[in-house]
Amino acid sequence: MQPCELTLGAAADAVRARRLSPVELLDSVLERVGRTEPHLCAYVTVTEEHARRAAREAADDIAAGRHRGPLHGIPMALKDLIDVAGVPTSASSRVRTGHRAGASSTVAARLAAAGAVLVGKTHTHEFAYGLTTPQTRNAWDTGRVAGGSSGGSAVAVAAGSATFALGTDTGGSIRVPAALNGVVGLKPTYGLVPRHGVTSLSWSLDHVGPITRTVADAALVLGALTGHDPRDPASLAAPATQYRPTAGADLTGLRVGVPRTYYFDHVDPEVEAAVRRAIDQLQALGARLVEVEIPLTRYIRATQWGLMVPEATAYHERTLRTVPELYQADVRVLLEAGELMSAGDYLRAQRSRTLMRREWARLLREVDLIAAPAVPATAVGAGQETVTWPDGTSEAVSDAYVRLSAPANITGVPSLSLPVGHDTAGLPIGMQLLGRPLGESVLLRAGHAYEQTRPAHGLARVA
Amino acid sequence: MQPCELTLGAAADAVRARRLSPVELLDSVLERVGRTEPHLCAYVTVTEEHARRAAREAADDIAAGRHRGPLHGIPMALKDLIDVAGVPTSASSRVRTGHRAGASSTVAARLAAAGAVLVGKTHTHEFAYGLTTPQTRNAWDTGRVAGGSSGGSAVAVAAGSATFALGTDTGGSIRVPAALNGVVGLKPTYGLVPRHGVTSLSWSLDHVGPITRTVADAALVLGALTGHDPRDPASLAAPATQYRPTAGADLTGLRVGVPRTYYFDHVDPEVEAAVRRAIDQLQALGARLVEVEIPLTRYIRATQWGLMVPEATAYHERTLRTVPELYQADVRVLLEAGELMSAGDYLRAQRSRTLMRREWARLLREVDLIAAPAVPATAVGAGQETVTWPDGTSEAVSDAYVRLSAPANITGVPSLSLPVGHDTAGLPIGMQLLGRPLGESVLLRAGHAYEQTRPAHGLARVA
Repeated sequence: MQPCELTLGAAADAVRARRLSPVELLDSVLERVGRTEPHLCAYVTVTEEHARRAAREAADDIAAGRHRGPLHGIPMALKDLIDVAGVPTSASSRVRTGHRAGASSTVAARLAAAGAVLVGKTHTHEFAYGLTTPQTRNAWDTGRVAGGSSGGSAVAVAAGSATFALGTDTGGSIRVPAALNGVVGLKPTYGLVPRHGVTSLSWSLDHVGPITRTVADAALVLGALTGHDPRDPASLAAPATQYRPTAGADLTGLRVGVPRTYYFDHVDPEVEAAVRRAIDQLQALGARLVEVEIPLTRYIRATQWGLMVPEATAYHERTLRTVPELYQADVRVLLEAGELMSAGDYLRAQRSRTLMRREWARLLREVDLIAAPAVPATAVGAGQETVTWPDGTSEAVSDAYVRLSAPANITGVPSLSLPVGHDTAGLPIGMQLLGRPLGESVLLRAGHAYEQTRPAHGLARVA
Repeated sequence: MQPCELTLGAAADAVRARRLSPVELLDSVLERVGRTEPHLCAYVTVTEEHARRAAREAADDIAAGRHRGPLHGIPMALKDLIDVAGVPTSASSRVRTGHRAGASSTVAARLAAAGAVLVGKTHTHEFAYGLTTPQTRNAWDTGRVAGGSSGGSAVAVAAGSATFALGTDTGGSIRVPAALNGVVGLKPTYGLVPRHGVTSLSWSLDHVGPITRTVADAALVLGALTGHDPRDPASLAAPATQYRPTAGADLTGLRVGVPRTYYFDHVDPEVEAAVRRAIDQLQALGARLVEVEIPLTRYIRATQWGLMVPEATAYHERTLRTVPELYQADVRVLLEAGELMSAGDYLRAQRSRTLMRREWARLLREVDLIAAPAVPATAVGAGQETVTWPDGTSEAVSDAYVRLSAPANITGVPSLSLPVGHDTAGLPIGMQLLGRPLGESVLLRAGHAYEQTRPAHGLARVA
C-alpha cells in the first residue's frame, strides 16, 4: 500500500509513531496527483512548493518532539472557495482572474495551525452554484460527473491525491460529490464551522465541512474546524466536543428513523437496495428502526431555491452588472433569475424554513438520527441533463441531486454521507445520516460503527 | 391620592400588606376609565366584567394568604395586538371585525398567572403600522397625538386608567408614546419576551415590553414576561435575571456613552436641553460620560424600512388581496409599497443589519449604556404631518418619531425610555438608555437611580 492510500487516521498514527515522514507521505500524494490529474482535473492549483516546505517543517517539528496532533503533516486539499493567504481563490470562475487572497480563511488558518499540509485548491462548480463540477471527472468513471459543487475535493480524496479535503455545502455540495465518489462527507450543523474567508453562495444555507475516506477521519478533521468565530455572524458558541468515535460498534438503544416518505421516492432501485441493506446493518448492530414521516415535504424545493437564488444574486450583484459575460451560462441564468425575485417570495421561503425547523426539531425528538439515501442516483454521464425514473417521469439532474440534500441545508441539521456499496456499473452509492443540531457525535458514532462492519475499500480506480 | 394614581410598586406593596384590596384598586381605576375615556379614547375594549371577577378572586386569594407576587391584583391594559382568550384582538382595524382570540398569547398568560387584572385592550395605530395612534389623544393635551403605535397603552398608564400596560415596538412603538405621554417604556432585547399570540408587524423587528409610571415598575413587569417560549422562533433561552433595581442611586463606575453624532441631530432644543440635563444628573450620581460615535448612521433609515415594509406586507398578503378597502389609507399605501420591493432590497437591509449589529456590539464594549433623546420632538398636533427643524429643513412626523428609535429595533439592543421633564408647552420629554443585549438590568438600575433624584410627578392632566 502506498502512503497516499492510507486513511487520515492510519497516516496520522504512522506519522506520530515516526514510521512515516510527512515528506514521504507528501511525495506519495504528489506522485499520485501527477498520475491522476491528467484524467481527473480535481485541482485548480497545486501548491507544490508550499507543500514541500510545509511537509519538511512538519517532519522537523515531529522529529524534534513537537507533534501537534492527528493532522500534523497530513496532505489536504481545499475547495477553491476557501481563502489561503497569498494563493488565488478562483471559485473556478473567470470572474476571479487575477485574484489573490490577502488573508487566510478561519478554517485554513485552523488547519495550518494543526499542521496540515496544503497540496492545492480544488475545483468547484463555478462559485459553488451547481451540482456537477464540469471541469472535474468522477474518480470511478471519467465519463461520469464528479458531482458538485465540491467535486474537486471529493475526487481528490477518492483518488488519493489528498488525504482529506474541505468542501462547502449549500444544497448538498459536500454530500453529493462524496456519495458519487465513494467517500465520506460531513455537512455540520449550521454555524458550527466558521465561514469567514470562504466565498459565499447563500449565507443562510452555506456550510463548510470535511471530505474524507472514513467516518473516523471526518471526526478528526471536524475537531480542528470548530470553535466560535465572531467574524462569521452565524458562528455558534458551541461547547468543545470530542468527536472521535470510540472503537466499539454497539448501537444498542440508538433510535434510527427510516423515512416512510420523501427520501425513498424517485430513488434508483439499486441505491434504495444498498441503503436499506446498510440500515439493516445498523439494526444488526443494535439500533432500533422507527418509521418516520418527513414533515412539510411539499415546501422543500421552493424553500431551498427561494432562499438560495436571491442570496446568491445579492452576493454577485456588482460583477453581474460589470462583467456578466465572464460567468458560465448556467450560473449566469440562475444569478439573473434572482434579480426577478420579490421580497415576498424570499420572505415566504424564510417563513417556511422556520416551520420546517420546528417540525424537524419535533421529529428529531422521536429518533436519534434519520438514515436515508444521500443522492437518489449514482453519477450520471457527463453532459447528461435529466434523470428518468422507473415510473417514466424525469427530473433535471440538479433537482435530483439537490432533492435529498436540501432539508439539512434548510433546517441546519448535520448530515453525514458515507459509502454503502456500488451499483452494478461499479459506481459508489451513499447513505446520509441526519441528526439533531450539534448532534455530530451521534452521527459519527453510528457511521463509524457501520464502516467497521465493511471491508476497507481502497482508492477509486482511475481510468 | 386615589389608588389609581399609585405606581405599580406602591400599589403592590399596599395590596401585599392588605392596606389596599384589588377590588378597591380596580374600582378606582375603572372610575378613572369612565372619567377619562370620553376625552382620551385609550381603550378599544374595557373588559369590566372580567376585571371585576379577577379582582375579587385576587382579593380572596390574598386574603387567604395566597399572594402570588407584585402583579397580583394589579389592573393592567394590553395593546390590542395581544391575544387574550375569548376577547377580540382588533388591532384597531376593520380588517379584524368579528375576530375573537381562541387562546391567550404567552405574555397575557404569564401576566394572568402572575395575578394581574385585565382592565381592557388599548388602541394601536392600525396593525401597529404608524407612529401616532390617531384614535387616541395625548394624555397631557388632547389636541396632540398620543404617539404610537402603542398609543392607547401609554395614554392609559399616563392617565391612571391602568396601573401598567404592555405595548409592542417595531420602530419605537413602545418608546415613542411613552416619551410623548411622560411614562416609562421598555423595549427589551430582541427575543427576551416571547411574541407568541401577538399580531406581528415585522417579525425581525417586533418586540413586546412594559409601559409603566416608573422604571422600578418596568422591572417588576419585565420579570413576569421573560422566559423561553419555543412557539416564538426568536425566543431566547436567557438565564433568569433579577431585574428589580436596588434602592441605592450610586452609579460610580458606570460608563455612559453620549452620542456625538446622530442622536442630537435635528432634535428640538428643549428636548436636547432636558436630555443633557438628565445626562448631567447621571454624571452627578457617579457615572463617567464618554463621547461615542454612532456607527453606520447613513444606513439606519433604509435598513429599518427595508426590513419592516416587506415583512409587514408578507403578513398581510392575503387580506391585502381580499379586503384592501378595509385598511386605513396610510397603512394600505405602506402595505402595497411592500409588494414592489425586490428580494435584493430586502437582502441589502439584512446585510446592513448584520454590519450594524457588529458595530454596535463593538460600541457597547466601550460603554455600559448610551443615553440619548427618545424622540426628537414632543407630541405634535393631531393631524400635523411634518416637523420643521431650526435649520429650516422639515421631516415627516413618522420619520422623525422612528429616527431615534430604529437603531435599537435593527440591532435588537434593549432601550428604556423614561421621562426627563416637560417643554414650555407642558409636554413630556423622554430620554432613552440603550444597552447591551440582555443588559436590561444595567438600564433599569441607571434609570431607577435617575428617577429617585426627581420629584415624583402625578398623573397626566386630562382635559
